[in-house]
Amino acid sequence: MKRGKWNSRIVWAFVWGTITVCGTQNSWSQTAISSIYNVPMAEYPKVDEQRRALFRLYAPEAYDVKADICGKKYPMTKDNNGMWTVTTDPLVVGFHYYFFIVDGVQVTDPASDCFYGCGRMASGIEVPESPEEAAYYTFNKSIAHGQVRECQYYSEVEGQVRRCFVYTPAEYETSPKSKYPVLYLQHGMGEDERGWHEQGHMANILDGQIASGKCKPMIVVMDYGDCGYIHGTKKGETRDEFGASFGNILLRDIIPFVEKTFRVKTDRDHRAMAGLSWGGHQTFQITLTHLDQFAHIGAFSGAILMAPGQNITDVYGGVFSDADKFNKQVHTLFLGQGTEEGMGCDRMSQSLKEAGINHVYYASPGTHHEWLTWRRCLNEFLPLLFKQ
Amino acid sequence: MKRGKWNSRIVWAFVWGTITVCGTQNSWSQTAISSIYNVPMAEYPKVDEQRRALFRLYAPEAYDVKADICGKKYPMTKDNNGMWTVTTDPLVVGFHYYFFIVDGVQVTDPASDCFYGCGRMASGIEVPESPEEAAYYTFNKSIAHGQVRECQYYSEVEGQVRRCFVYTPAEYETSPKSKYPVLYLQHGMGEDERGWHEQGHMANILDGQIASGKCKPMIVVMDYGDCGYIHGTKKGETRDEFGASFGNILLRDIIPFVEKTFRVKTDRDHRAMAGLSWGGHQTFQITLTHLDQFAHIGAFSGAILMAPGQNITDVYGGVFSDADKFNKQVHTLFLGQGTEEGMGCDRMSQSLKEAGINHVYYASPGTHHEWLTWRRCLNEFLPLLFKQ
Repeated sequence: MKRGKWNSRIVWAFVWGTITVCGTQNSWSQTAISSIYNVPMAEYPKVDEQRRALFRLYAPEAYDVKADICGKKYPMTKDNNGMWTVTTDPLVVGFHYYFFIVDGVQVTDPASDCFYGCGRMASGIEVPESPEEAAYYTFNKSIAHGQVRECQYYSEVEGQVRRCFVYTPAEYETSPKSKYPVLYLQHGMGEDERGWHEQGHMANILDGQIASGKCKPMIVVMDYGDCGYIHGTKKGETRDEFGASFGNILLRDIIPFVEKTFRVKTDRDHRAMAGLSWGGHQTFQITLTHLDQFAHIGAFSGAILMAPGQNITDVYGGVFSDADKFNKQVHTLFLGQGTEEGMGCDRMSQSLKEAGINHVYYASPGTHHEWLTWRRCLNEFLPLLFKQ
Repeated sequence: MKRGKWNSRIVWAFVWGTITVCGTQNSWSQTAISSIYNVPMAEYPKVDEQRRALFRLYAPEAYDVKADICGKKYPMTKDNNGMWTVTTDPLVVGFHYYFFIVDGVQVTDPASDCFYGCGRMASGIEVPESPEEAAYYTFNKSIAHGQVRECQYYSEVEGQVRRCFVYTPAEYETSPKSKYPVLYLQHGMGEDERGWHEQGHMANILDGQIASGKCKPMIVVMDYGDCGYIHGTKKGETRDEFGASFGNILLRDIIPFVEKTFRVKTDRDHRAMAGLSWGGHQTFQITLTHLDQFAHIGAFSGAILMAPGQNITDVYGGVFSDADKFNKQVHTLFLGQGTEEGMGCDRMSQSLKEAGINHVYYASPGTHHEWLTWRRCLNEFLPLLFKQ
């Protein structure tokens, strides 16, 4: 949600349903809608009724401009006024990072807001679902709303100030004596602590589920997982070391800060951790080696890293080798991914099943390794938490 | 503050004090420091001990690259590997938006975080002051910290959801029965509701003043002033109409939302408004026509718009024509600007003085129409508020 355009645009978008029936190829320019992430007064980029993005860049002196989205580079065409344009293929629904490539340089679109992804600030566009499909992550004016609080705290581990975002539910304001369970929720590689509320619309998801009683009122903490750059760029770092410093920061700085600052329950039964992609890997790495501190675990498109020939019962100190013990200790174990991304969570689920490990596996229909998968995963994960 | 680099970098920067004495022109590459706004693992841009920015962009296929900062375009030089570099002239201290111009296209630096300014997302660089000078807007680990809360609310005026940021002081958490005065604080033209806490470091300024007792604990509300694009781009809009819709939104949506959601004092003696640049103009426009609702007013580098030949006693329905009445009604009237920008606040102050209007005028030494001027203005303004 940027400057409040989310709600009305989503609804407006689906006037399409009617228009498309009698429309022709030539009519898209009338019915395509501006992306919800455009800066004020920017008409383009747009998305048309076939879910194609329409990009535009004024670059009279450039000799080669492409649009770079969903893993494909689309050559753009220059008109006599120096305006480059292109219409993409139909795109998968959901949020996509994108760039322009101007004479070989990958740049952001001046007409788009920016989002931290791909190890840098990127442009973003939302190819909308139907209002019904999008309802769970869309602002609902009829319910009470929580807040996403930006907090600064001093990290003893790093010896410097850090930032985290903390979602508090609406009732946190009005029930000054209540204490709440906490979900620590992590972004993926090349992203940062802004991802879940800016790209993920997590506040709308939580607000909706809490209002309807689908999930328990809870606090959600989003911090920087030290994996906000593309793998391998930190000097001398191995794959195992990538983002490994975050465990220490979480356990020694973040959790103590949260428990000192907010009214939260501090036992393991009321502490969850989840993450997407590399954040899912970090979640497994941290929680499965600290089961005395976490009872709820989620990995969205995130992998258990297993060496070739390694068995599921070998990893994380053999935590999956005693299924009875594990199933008693861990109240929630959730794996999810998009059907189009192939991150291996389905095979992992199969291995866990064979090992007798209770868990929930969710496959998001038709989505890739992108934020719509993770919004859906969060939506499936939340109702499982803090039931005891 | 991004990912916690602010504090340590500022201190590190001033190792320079010693190094420069025995340094030479050739030694800058050893002593220049990475900008605090760089994305993780990005070494450049840097700032050297002469307050020059060192920019770098990999663009092997581009034929012309410039760095665009502080109103000047610096041609960059390409080496054999396709890396373009330039060192700027010495720059004014403080925060500067900047861009690269690649074959005629203004783009952001992939190595920098982005900030909404200039009607689009822009790169940002901080040319640091000394730790002593910067202390008031730098994170202080020894004091209690407030929070900046992102809130979504439904605007009846606009018929859609909007976003605002609300700073709550540290004691808001621990004194659940206390009520607080409110400052409504506005960004400038081409910026948005993110400006004051991202570019302005307002939370650090408030935290420090509240901890030392210099200002009263208060709530600060930052919303989008409908002037986040460059003047004239809204179809058919006149200068008078630019951002004019915000007054209605503030009075009918934002203030009611804040007073319903937060524990705040709701009388005019405990309600202030201030803004920078066009936000200062909006502040005058709104408060001086609603003095029944505001008793504290601040304009930082912002102008009263006066037609040629118009007198100060003619504007805003003649509100300045009865000095005694005005001085009794308005507890704080503050004007400030940088000595290098010439926004006319000094002349306005002179006119107000001649009309017998009590006010404070502050000139920020050596700063331009940029965020360091506005951090300083806020720092001077806050102690004046809510004294009765």
